[in-house]
Amino acid sequence: MRLTPLVAGLPATVPFVGPEARERREGAPFRARLGANESVFGPSPRAVAAMARAAAEAWKYGDPEAHDLRAALAAHHGVDARNVLVGEGIDGLLGNLVRLLVAPGDPVVSSRGSYPTFGYHVAGFGGVMRQVPYRADRQDPGALLEAARETGARLVYLANPDNPMGGWFGAEEIANLVAALPDDALLCLDEAYADFMDESALLPLDMDEARVIRMRTFSKAHGLAGARVGYALGRSDLIAAFDRVRNHFGVGRISQAGALAALEDRAWLARVVADVERSKTRLASIARANGLAPLPSATNFVTVDCRRDGDFARRVLAELGARGVFVRMPFVAPEDRCVRVTTGTDADLDVFAAALPVALSRAAEQG
Amino acid sequence: MRLTPLVAGLPATVPFVGPEARERREGAPFRARLGANESVFGPSPRAVAAMARAAAEAWKYGDPEAHDLRAALAAHHGVDARNVLVGEGIDGLLGNLVRLLVAPGDPVVSSRGSYPTFGYHVAGFGGVMRQVPYRADRQDPGALLEAARETGARLVYLANPDNPMGGWFGAEEIANLVAALPDDALLCLDEAYADFMDESALLPLDMDEARVIRMRTFSKAHGLAGARVGYALGRSDLIAAFDRVRNHFGVGRISQAGALAALEDRAWLARVVADVERSKTRLASIARANGLAPLPSATNFVTVDCRRDGDFARRVLAELGARGVFVRMPFVAPEDRCVRVTTGTDADLDVFAAALPVALSRAAEQG
Repeated sequence: MRLTPLVAGLPATVPFVGPEARERREGAPFRARLGANESVFGPSPRAVAAMARAAAEAWKYGDPEAHDLRAALAAHHGVDARNVLVGEGIDGLLGNLVRLLVAPGDPVVSSRGSYPTFGYHVAGFGGVMRQVPYRADRQDPGALLEAARETGARLVYLANPDNPMGGWFGAEEIANLVAALPDDALLCLDEAYADFMDESALLPLDMDEARVIRMRTFSKAHGLAGARVGYALGRSDLIAAFDRVRNHFGVGRISQAGALAALEDRAWLARVVADVERSKTRLASIARANGLAPLPSATNFVTVDCRRDGDFARRVLAELGARGVFVRMPFVAPEDRCVRVTTGTDADLDVFAAALPVALSRAAEQG
Repeated sequence: MRLTPLVAGLPATVPFVGPEARERREGAPFRARLGANESVFGPSPRAVAAMARAAAEAWKYGDPEAHDLRAALAAHHGVDARNVLVGEGIDGLLGNLVRLLVAPGDPVVSSRGSYPTFGYHVAGFGGVMRQVPYRADRQDPGALLEAARETGARLVYLANPDNPMGGWFGAEEIANLVAALPDDALLCLDEAYADFMDESALLPLDMDEARVIRMRTFSKAHGLAGARVGYALGRSDLIAAFDRVRNHFGVGRISQAGALAALEDRAWLARVVADVERSKTRLASIARANGLAPLPSATNFVTVDCRRDGDFARRVLAELGARGVFVRMPFVAPEDRCVRVTTGTDADLDVFAAALPVALSRAAEQG
């Protein structure tokens, strides 16, 4: 085995261990799956039905152009289909975006503790990542800009709403960031959680804007994480460039059918968003009842400040896990004083509410 | 948009245009879909049912380790799960394999006219492809070896059974090729069509062999092209290396469930293989009845020698298309005297049988 020098230098670690791997290790299923920001409220029944129908037709490759889904997305967003790219989740799209723009040694800018899979792709293509710290629990546009200017970065990553902290910037703040970007820099605006925000609070779509590419997904509000469909919105020349590197048949027929049906079921989406709001409210009150501080969230999760250090929060996480609660802490100090809890059903939150005080007291005893 | 120099130098062409794109252009659906080597006999009903069940659970990400599917594949093949990698079709696996082994400027060897998507990936990572000609309608192991020695290639590609010509090598011929490979070269043995051959005729699996990686798929005999699941079998260190670059959550929950159920339904597979044999026999006799020469095939398609030049075969292809028959000609001269016809139902073959003589006479008139 003679790996390329670039690959030989990559670490063997993976960005996320799946809950199934942890369940296999523990020998028992989680009682509450609240760690991967999935939508426990499920996909639209219309999407489920569409996927079941498509399953019988699964002998056919999916349309490599994802024509119908792209057309529907274009109509939904009021853009042209040439501004829409469908891919294997945002993870897959981020990998291809980095591949298009980042040659070995090229600088890239993001926030320390932001989505690890983006960093994984940057490292994977030999990019040099400059990460700036969060500021008061938010990504810091000023610091991102400064780092972009200093390094000459061609790619700047910002998640809005933010994962893992849950916060958000308004349209004007994002517009100011875009306006101040150095020439030739592209902002990758990861809007995986955009469906949980008011459309009016998001940066308006401008498909002539060469300096922004938006990432959206069916994995969160649409409840289709297991179907792996994400999409990018951007200027047509950038979208077309993905054709040079992407796995053209990578998004299968079933996934395309499910996403299309999910997109059309606006009532289901509205219901999920309402369920998520209710669940966030209850998660926040559970946290407060235990003396913790829930952070404001425009996503489908609540990041909970455990009000001590990272070691304490890691112990809380472990104790929750031992009680069958899957949550994650994808944070870097000092944000690692938090744990991230995905919204769940009432039953899920009952499990969490019962486990949290025990986990906190055990974690405190061990401190 | 500031693409990397490597990407900026890539052509905008894609390896395959999907049949849906052609249908949209023509404004009518194909009457017989016989061009993409899909399995018109469909997936196992058990796989369809498993995917329908998984669809309702699609809010959960698929297991990034594909543990259950890998375990079942390992048991099926009598290897360890560490020798098995599940990925987004062979296309996706080929891309990652090239990324692991081929740095810009590195030589790679394959046959002229063999699977274009492999060449697409090699170009995409800056590899320099040396393609050797077919010899008497078969890939030429001696020429592949000579090219590998001359260039110092680290990666040699051979499809067995072969796409697009349909032929095959026996286990001994492949073993001889492996034994003669230069040190440090890896043979990528694309066995997408292996399910149509007797297991005994295939190179035995040897998971200690560092110089071979095998590619298999659920897209052909298992009829799951639209679910996008392929797998690689190889030495554990090479398999583990994919974790450094792959899209870990890329194979979704529905696809994993479908593949697992398909793998277990051996009776369905046997029935499909028998249906394919019958269809190949009829395709061959249709070809012969029209004065053409069907080539021997160990796949789910029949490559038909039209007995004239490439221009003639291209006209035949166009005339078939105009009559609603989707077939392809992924060949390079002189093999482009052939058209490739996937096996189909009796109804599909009726359409083909009716269209072929007209297409041939029109093509001859235009010549």
